[in-house]
Amino acid sequence: MRQRLGTSSIQLETPVFIIGSASVVGKKEGEGPLGLLFDVVGNDDFFGCDTWEEAESSLQKHAVQLALEKAGVHAQDVDCMLAGDLLGQSIATSFGISSYQIPLLGLYGACSTCGEALAIGSMMIAGGFADKTVCVTSSHFASAEKEFRFPLDYGNQRPLSATWTVTGSGAFVLSANEDGLNNTCYDKATDMSEAEKTEMSHVARAKITGITIGKITDYGVKDSMNMGACMAPASASTLERHFIDFNSQPEDYDKIITGDLGSVGQTILIDLLREKGYDIAGRHMDCGMEIFDAGAQDTHAGGSGCGCSAVTLSAYILKLLEEGTWKKVLFMPTGALLSKTSFNEGKSVPGIAHAVVLERP
Amino acid sequence: MRQRLGTSSIQLETPVFIIGSASVVGKKEGEGPLGLLFDVVGNDDFFGCDTWEEAESSLQKHAVQLALEKAGVHAQDVDCMLAGDLLGQSIATSFGISSYQIPLLGLYGACSTCGEALAIGSMMIAGGFADKTVCVTSSHFASAEKEFRFPLDYGNQRPLSATWTVTGSGAFVLSANEDGLNNTCYDKATDMSEAEKTEMSHVARAKITGITIGKITDYGVKDSMNMGACMAPASASTLERHFIDFNSQPEDYDKIITGDLGSVGQTILIDLLREKGYDIAGRHMDCGMEIFDAGAQDTHAGGSGCGCSAVTLSAYILKLLEEGTWKKVLFMPTGALLSKTSFNEGKSVPGIAHAVVLERP
Repeated sequence: MRQRLGTSSIQLETPVFIIGSASVVGKKEGEGPLGLLFDVVGNDDFFGCDTWEEAESSLQKHAVQLALEKAGVHAQDVDCMLAGDLLGQSIATSFGISSYQIPLLGLYGACSTCGEALAIGSMMIAGGFADKTVCVTSSHFASAEKEFRFPLDYGNQRPLSATWTVTGSGAFVLSANEDGLNNTCYDKATDMSEAEKTEMSHVARAKITGITIGKITDYGVKDSMNMGACMAPASASTLERHFIDFNSQPEDYDKIITGDLGSVGQTILIDLLREKGYDIAGRHMDCGMEIFDAGAQDTHAGGSGCGCSAVTLSAYILKLLEEGTWKKVLFMPTGALLSKTSFNEGKSVPGIAHAVVLERP
Repeated sequence: MRQRLGTSSIQLETPVFIIGSASVVGKKEGEGPLGLLFDVVGNDDFFGCDTWEEAESSLQKHAVQLALEKAGVHAQDVDCMLAGDLLGQSIATSFGISSYQIPLLGLYGACSTCGEALAIGSMMIAGGFADKTVCVTSSHFASAEKEFRFPLDYGNQRPLSATWTVTGSGAFVLSANEDGLNNTCYDKATDMSEAEKTEMSHVARAKITGITIGKITDYGVKDSMNMGACMAPASASTLERHFIDFNSQPEDYDKIITGDLGSVGQTILIDLLREKGYDIAGRHMDCGMEIFDAGAQDTHAGGSGCGCSAVTLSAYILKLLEEGTWKKVLFMPTGALLSKTSFNEGKSVPGIAHAVVLERP
């Protein structure tokens, strides 16, 4: 069995199904263009917790719970969880999902983590190492500003190239089976009528058929208020390798979707790809540009954060795949690999981007 | 194909080989009991860099380079790198290994990351998603103290339960083939005589045959100066599940090796396992207790950090497997999931531990 493709890609010989997902977001995200599509919108961004970090943890916990419910899967039937966030030492994850007692592989890919989680989670299933995995990532505007930039109380000004970290968490249940009715999945199955079983079948929201793993790409940009410029070269690198490895063209996808490049990063990505001979201008979509109304919501270049691509995938992208509006998209969350330590020491902000091919099941 | 075992384990139907590894450590580690076994010992802990973080990055870069050389593998023939460290947003990794331009999956499992990397890296190979992967982790005493506790210049006192973060990086080249002579591996192979090829064959240092993935385990301990107590329950949880999943007993392993529990954590682990009906007292070894002479080197409970288990694995454990002193060991790095933010907010320190079965090839 050989599933490698080219230099950095994997074609899944047997596709892996997303059989359930959920999105939990903050108030501002609920007021944005996708607001009505999210499963849960908070009244405020504390979600009943005492700290921003705890609030972010509760986002993850809630998103996983909802995703499991929607997939009809019990936590004890999940073989492995793939999870991460933006905070130092991934504490939103450590304190968010421990109560599920699912074996955990913690990931860090900055805002690309959702792509990384889907990649590893689907490889574990396609390789026969797991029947079901759960992928979850989160971000929180206030915990991220505190972690990377300035305390909110400073009220510092933000340049127009800055993005607004999304408060939200997206969770995804991946399965080897499309119908979610295999032996470890739904313990009600034995009590169900044939009609109920038919209704339960084909619950998959999408299937994952390919993966391109990102490389750290560093053009030397040092501006943490312009993450789009920091990440665009990495997304261009992954995209070019993807097209070569899969022998595909932009036209083979209904949409080519980045995580959080924002409007500045989008321009750079389209330009870089044009230099490499690919025109994606008509097919590119950025989750960060979809989730907020930049003019009305004062979010400048767009939304960002681990949660941005994850909640947009769950609420919007998978919906359009389910409905048949799109048949095949490339989903590529983008990450900026900085910390306040590296930033303060004058280092650049390298980027990374992991892509997964999502198809209508 | 089904490789799952029990609730949290994976039996690799085809083993994955560690065909090369390297260890690069700081001055203090070089003066310890394992000092003569490490590949490179620094003269000071800056390794020619300006900051502790850059020094840690250079450790990773150096360890990967040496491991590739020893395995006879070129960077461009590695399909994926699995890497992580302890610093916020894993910056030692981001700035350490980008020059190799190998697709990267960034991991965070605190000091358990070496186990997590070997687990994912070997699943990728066993599943047919990669021919070769490189796993690398690092830690640095000074960057870790700055990240988690106090600036070194404070000269603060350390309780006897504290561990000393190891300055070091261990890197491992994993391969589907034992002999390192497959088509993508060693381009000198075509120019080699049969005698040379024979000499090159069986270069594997060990084979990975099983995996048990850790769960976050939190007994509510809040003392960041007693990481052994924080991590011991997680290692007990992983170990119990491992014995059940593999239907094995402590006697089936020549050694059961934890990463950095230190002397305090070791006592707790042995006690917890005894309550569960397993006596590991005669077979347990902790990398943190091997790497330093606690009395002479003033390291108190032992060594710790991502680098601790990684360099001990490369320099010592794999050596004894190669020599035949041990035939089968369980290697289980242990991680304490804290950040200074969660610590300052009064949260506990949960633990996690990932185990891999290593056998003489």
